[in-house]
Amino acid sequence: MEKTLESRTVYRGSIINLRLDSVELGNGRTALREVVEHPGAVGILALKKNGDIVMVRQYRKAVERELLELPAGKLEKGEDPKECAARELEEETGYRASDIRYIMTFYTSPGFSNEVMHLFYATGLDRGEKHPDEDEVVDTVEIGQKEALDMVLSGGIRDGKTITGILILNRINELT
Amino acid sequence: MEKTLESRTVYRGSIINLRLDSVELGNGRTALREVVEHPGAVGILALKKNGDIVMVRQYRKAVERELLELPAGKLEKGEDPKECAARELEEETGYRASDIRYIMTFYTSPGFSNEVMHLFYATGLDRGEKHPDEDEVVDTVEIGQKEALDMVLSGGIRDGKTITGILILNRINELT
Repeated sequence: MEKTLESRTVYRGSIINLRLDSVELGNGRTALREVVEHPGAVGILALKKNGDIVMVRQYRKAVERELLELPAGKLEKGEDPKECAARELEEETGYRASDIRYIMTFYTSPGFSNEVMHLFYATGLDRGEKHPDEDEVVDTVEIGQKEALDMVLSGGIRDGKTITGILILNRINELT
Repeated sequence: MEKTLESRTVYRGSIINLRLDSVELGNGRTALREVVEHPGAVGILALKKNGDIVMVRQYRKAVERELLELPAGKLEKGEDPKECAARELEEETGYRASDIRYIMTFYTSPGFSNEVMHLFYATGLDRGEKHPDEDEVVDTVEIGQKEALDMVLSGGIRDGKTITGILILNRINELT
């Protein structure tokens, strides 16, 4: 437990806020915690009938490179994560899923951010229409499960949530 | 590719910086990117002779709860990731490892941060002395692999790097 002595928001942005907390530690010392507030996000492991994983390729400014990722997106205020998963899957890939199941939730980087990532498993895909956000440029890529796992192990896939989703795939039957 | 039109650092902190980039997208539009700069980190999957995973339990202010995680820590300036892994393992758990191998590198949250996480696999553990940073209060916990996997699937383990490390464990022999 870390008791908050003082809390100050130094930046309010469109996706994140930055908050500085002075805290008292369990050992009596004080420390400063830099906290990036994030609304939370969903990632979608969407499988086609042939088993291929629907992925997106997009440029990520923060890391200055293109990444191959699971479709994903931020939660809107008050939005149900499962509805967000359906919405983001369709926005980014054009696919509508007849079945979406919850897999798991994790913190992406709890050392400095409260971002949670809810992973979902989507099947029964039907082609709808892509309509990405105005500031998104996203290509859809469909990749076999074996190839995706090889890319995780060889470094061809470098996004945390995507690696987790691909690694958990062989546990899906136990989960759903 | 997103061309940077303007870049401004609005916060320089002890662990992170916050930078705002105006960018020109591939579709000609402009957008603002909020980028949290982080020095990068390592996580260590350390196995005892009996197969137990050495983990740490610590309070994470950003998420206001205690988490069970792999030992981990930030890279110091210019530090080699493998040396950082050895250092952090000993600082947080007191264990020295005779063998440390690289597993993989991933971005924890590339939508808003450049943080990279390098995962290592450590064996040949020898009890040394714990000496955590002054602002760290960390307990060591040793957990069987089966129990750890159950905790990933049931939500008892919620930290992204830790989930990735536990899920990749059954691929380790292919990797090393």
